[in-house]
Amino acid sequence: MTANPGPVAPSRGALRPVGMHQVRLTGGFWGQRQAVSGTATIEHCHSWMDRLGWTGNFRDPDAALRRRGREFSDSEVYKLTEAASWETGRPGGTDHRELVAELTALAAGAQAADGYLHTAYGRPGQPGRYSDFNFGHELYCVGHLLQAAVAAYRTGTAPQLLDVARRAADHVCTQFADEGFCGHPEVEPALVELFRVTGEQRYLDQAAKFIARRGRRSLPEHEFGWKYFQDDTPLRESAVFAGHAVRALYLAHGAVDVAVETGDDDLLGAVVRQFDRTLARRTYITGGMGSRHLDEAFGDDFALPPDRAYSETCAGVATVMLAHRLLLATGETRYGDIADRVLNNVIAAAVADDGRSFFYAHTLHQRTRAEVPSAEHEQLRFGGGQRAPWFEVSCCLSNVARLVASLGTYFVTESDAGVQIHQYAPMSVEAAGMRLEVQTAYPEDGAVTVTVAQAPAEERSITLRVPEWAGGGVHVERRVFAAGEQVRLDLSVRPRWTFPDPRVDAVRGCAAVEVGPVVMCAESIDQEDGVNLDELQVDTSVAPELGAVKGRAIRPVELAWPYRDRTTTTERPEPIVVPLVPYHRWARRGSSTMRVWLPTTPS
Amino acid sequence: MTANPGPVAPSRGALRPVGMHQVRLTGGFWGQRQAVSGTATIEHCHSWMDRLGWTGNFRDPDAALRRRGREFSDSEVYKLTEAASWETGRPGGTDHRELVAELTALAAGAQAADGYLHTAYGRPGQPGRYSDFNFGHELYCVGHLLQAAVAAYRTGTAPQLLDVARRAADHVCTQFADEGFCGHPEVEPALVELFRVTGEQRYLDQAAKFIARRGRRSLPEHEFGWKYFQDDTPLRESAVFAGHAVRALYLAHGAVDVAVETGDDDLLGAVVRQFDRTLARRTYITGGMGSRHLDEAFGDDFALPPDRAYSETCAGVATVMLAHRLLLATGETRYGDIADRVLNNVIAAAVADDGRSFFYAHTLHQRTRAEVPSAEHEQLRFGGGQRAPWFEVSCCLSNVARLVASLGTYFVTESDAGVQIHQYAPMSVEAAGMRLEVQTAYPEDGAVTVTVAQAPAEERSITLRVPEWAGGGVHVERRVFAAGEQVRLDLSVRPRWTFPDPRVDAVRGCAAVEVGPVVMCAESIDQEDGVNLDELQVDTSVAPELGAVKGRAIRPVELAWPYRDRTTTTERPEPIVVPLVPYHRWARRGSSTMRVWLPTTPS
Repeated sequence: MTANPGPVAPSRGALRPVGMHQVRLTGGFWGQRQAVSGTATIEHCHSWMDRLGWTGNFRDPDAALRRRGREFSDSEVYKLTEAASWETGRPGGTDHRELVAELTALAAGAQAADGYLHTAYGRPGQPGRYSDFNFGHELYCVGHLLQAAVAAYRTGTAPQLLDVARRAADHVCTQFADEGFCGHPEVEPALVELFRVTGEQRYLDQAAKFIARRGRRSLPEHEFGWKYFQDDTPLRESAVFAGHAVRALYLAHGAVDVAVETGDDDLLGAVVRQFDRTLARRTYITGGMGSRHLDEAFGDDFALPPDRAYSETCAGVATVMLAHRLLLATGETRYGDIADRVLNNVIAAAVADDGRSFFYAHTLHQRTRAEVPSAEHEQLRFGGGQRAPWFEVSCCLSNVARLVASLGTYFVTESDAGVQIHQYAPMSVEAAGMRLEVQTAYPEDGAVTVTVAQAPAEERSITLRVPEWAGGGVHVERRVFAAGEQVRLDLSVRPRWTFPDPRVDAVRGCAAVEVGPVVMCAESIDQEDGVNLDELQVDTSVAPELGAVKGRAIRPVELAWPYRDRTTTTERPEPIVVPLVPYHRWARRGSSTMRVWLPTTPS
Repeated sequence: MTANPGPVAPSRGALRPVGMHQVRLTGGFWGQRQAVSGTATIEHCHSWMDRLGWTGNFRDPDAALRRRGREFSDSEVYKLTEAASWETGRPGGTDHRELVAELTALAAGAQAADGYLHTAYGRPGQPGRYSDFNFGHELYCVGHLLQAAVAAYRTGTAPQLLDVARRAADHVCTQFADEGFCGHPEVEPALVELFRVTGEQRYLDQAAKFIARRGRRSLPEHEFGWKYFQDDTPLRESAVFAGHAVRALYLAHGAVDVAVETGDDDLLGAVVRQFDRTLARRTYITGGMGSRHLDEAFGDDFALPPDRAYSETCAGVATVMLAHRLLLATGETRYGDIADRVLNNVIAAAVADDGRSFFYAHTLHQRTRAEVPSAEHEQLRFGGGQRAPWFEVSCCLSNVARLVASLGTYFVTESDAGVQIHQYAPMSVEAAGMRLEVQTAYPEDGAVTVTVAQAPAEERSITLRVPEWAGGGVHVERRVFAAGEQVRLDLSVRPRWTFPDPRVDAVRGCAAVEVGPVVMCAESIDQEDGVNLDELQVDTSVAPELGAVKGRAIRPVELAWPYRDRTTTTERPEPIVVPLVPYHRWARRGSSTMRVWLPTTPS
């Protein structure tokens, strides 16, 4: 077991996770984000949860009629607790012990004598406990409680939260010994992690039971169908992730965790197979998952419309967490590739520079300029085009905060042989008996320099992931390293044209520009006067430059009916330059229209 | 005023509607549909509404806790009443007097002393009257009650229902004298029609008030935003239809009706402008409207994804009804064009051949084969790919039934000068003092022959709409007609390629085939062995044949990530033939995949 482990500490696997103290981000994009998230975002979340009464629900749980927020608002308080714990425990992090203590006291105070803990159910005037498996989110909230407790315990921030979590988990194991599971997975990986902390076998067994029970249409029938809840097909038999994206991904977390701890290679193989097909057929170029607004769900294979792409922030967080688990289990670098892509596009786009507003969904094509959201009111969940301070369903920001606070543990792994660096950022690493300093301006620049500050007098390997866009695989150096030695990797981040599989119907005849892992986009604010993003064609015979491509402006003839016997457009005689910015930078300079996929000049 | 008028009888306008007795469909596609709808569909709806307790709610309205169905289920009973009334009153229709009398008695029995009539609100154990303007649908249901009463009165099927309607309308006028309106428009056109029947000015005034009040964000804030309810901008100031499609279209019905009766050309012009832009930018090639599943709403301009196109059946019904109102008001043939398109694609596709199952939504691209729905249970609303016997929200089938039963009044108009034939079907027409027999196999064949069976000894015009795909405008013959004379129109229904406006991103690089007003589609069941609809390209340099186009099968190289530096496909060396069927015929031979828009070979 790793000392001071991070969120995921499997007892077995191809690679071992590093602990919270082993990686310190020392700057760069994610170092900066981590600093903002650990201060402003945590403060922002806390303040909104107080103001909206989500913390107050714990203080006064018997006041059922005054309870505020949705049925899953408790989980927000737990995710904030988790984020604050990791932040407190990370090297260089802000100390949030007081906050964690306060939130721990709230949770402890609201817990029933039998361990049940949820502020929306079971008291006079409330619906009964477990009266709505589809949408009650009771075990989902327990899951986040458990993960918060694991964080508070492992970082030493508030170890006593573990008692609350154990009582809640014991209640769950008793209550659900024989049947039942939650419409929203999350308790599954949380129970496994609590097992990893406590050694309590029944927690692992219970997680395995929850996963095995699912997929037999035993939840109440619902408008969205059983697939939405991953209750249409047992996970072991599924071919691809389907239904509600975050649910599917969290369930997969639990399945990997159970598979690793029980040595269930069949179960692990099922998740690998489903993730592979999902990456090949159901993922946006940004790494975003879940294309449907209606049910926040994966679409059919290749159904990836760029406008009103859903690509929920939380699905991005969940993808990074799943890729990390599979990386640890299998050691395969491709899981670093997808994490890189999701981090540098979805997660990077999600939060405003000041850490105080965020996107819930990540469209790849914004056709109209969005209204600027109010800073005073919760926003509607599905509003797009502008980051908002808070949403009625505000799951994303605290989710990003807990990920970002523990991000170092996602960047590096170790094994008996040495150190593996999966993500590039300026950082100090202690692993496999070595101290390393990583210097890079990645992803803006592809040069990565690893300087050995200290190494044992025996052979070690330093393994660097080579992203698929740079050829794929790994760069390995293995020898007895001396202090001062360097390992270098130089990845080309020359802008490149990228074309979609022809089965992605929604972007046929389009191309995108990528720079390293960064997807670029055209934003209206940068375009020449009169150039409309929906009325241009780019010339892919010319290599893209950094920040611009060449094209032409077209002007479709306005007709009363938009389907006709020929396509008639006029075009400006002079070519135009179409400036591009990283996708994650969009909508940071006011409302604008935007598109990632650029129509190409017909060849 | 027309004798025995149909659903819409304006007192003024460019053209006059014909009455129910003036047009008898004598066969052909719609004659056959009318016969099936008037027997099987009405029986089917009645039997499901009885079985699900939707009629029973009226029998036992005080049993609030046993009330069944959604908050708008009363409207289904009214729409069935309306359909059965028109069916009884149409030439050659089935006599449903007994059914209409039964339903009339139900409505009368459930009406409160003050005229209020809704089975879901206001009784002990129920939410209070008008406690949910957004989704209560109380005035929406009154609207359908009024329209049923107008039908029962005008056809003489159950004139006493008019008393119930008047009491309900009087209650509405009193209750809403100063403020308020319903989240779902419908009462507006219904009040105007009741004014047309009764001459009661306050009904017209109330409709005008409801329209004028809307658009000022006075409904409670909701996740979908005020636009969903058309409460973001006053109708008079809107540029295009937006928000929930059926709501927007029903509101437009009321606006046209009010505008016509009050001589408010500004209001009429607003609807004309919005409809024009909606047709140019927000309408599917099928004539379907409303692209979004989440909120059943219009998307942004040119946001018309073919897969998971929503294009609700009821929006199709509403479009035909709106086009008819604008045709009467303005006399412009383009309104006949869109009605033709919607009827022959959306409405024709909606109902199974036996009249007992139907589509709620009309996708233009089905990627996976749908499960065959159970004939025993209500289906989930958003299930696609197979017609279902009933849905939890089952608004569509009764809506089609009321339209189809009165369809003759949509096909022909008259004026002092003569007769205008807007839609082609075998039919007998009595109008402008003439008796005409129309013979045609339209839309399969473009030949239309109008034989004058009887005419006065004075000049008359016979005006035939020339669809836009045949050049547009009208064919007019004006003279003193003698019995036996014929007027002929020969429209070319040669299959043709149709291309989308380049701003319809979702179908870039695709073409569709149309035959007359009929949109064609490729269905998997018809394809050569091994040809996948998502892996083919058609050759638009070859003219389409009736029922087939030429193309090639491609085979994309399967990669782990679907975005790459070039598009790599292999292709079968031999060209293939891609059979097509009319869109409205799809999914009638079991589950299949389907697409309207066919990728073209890159030029």
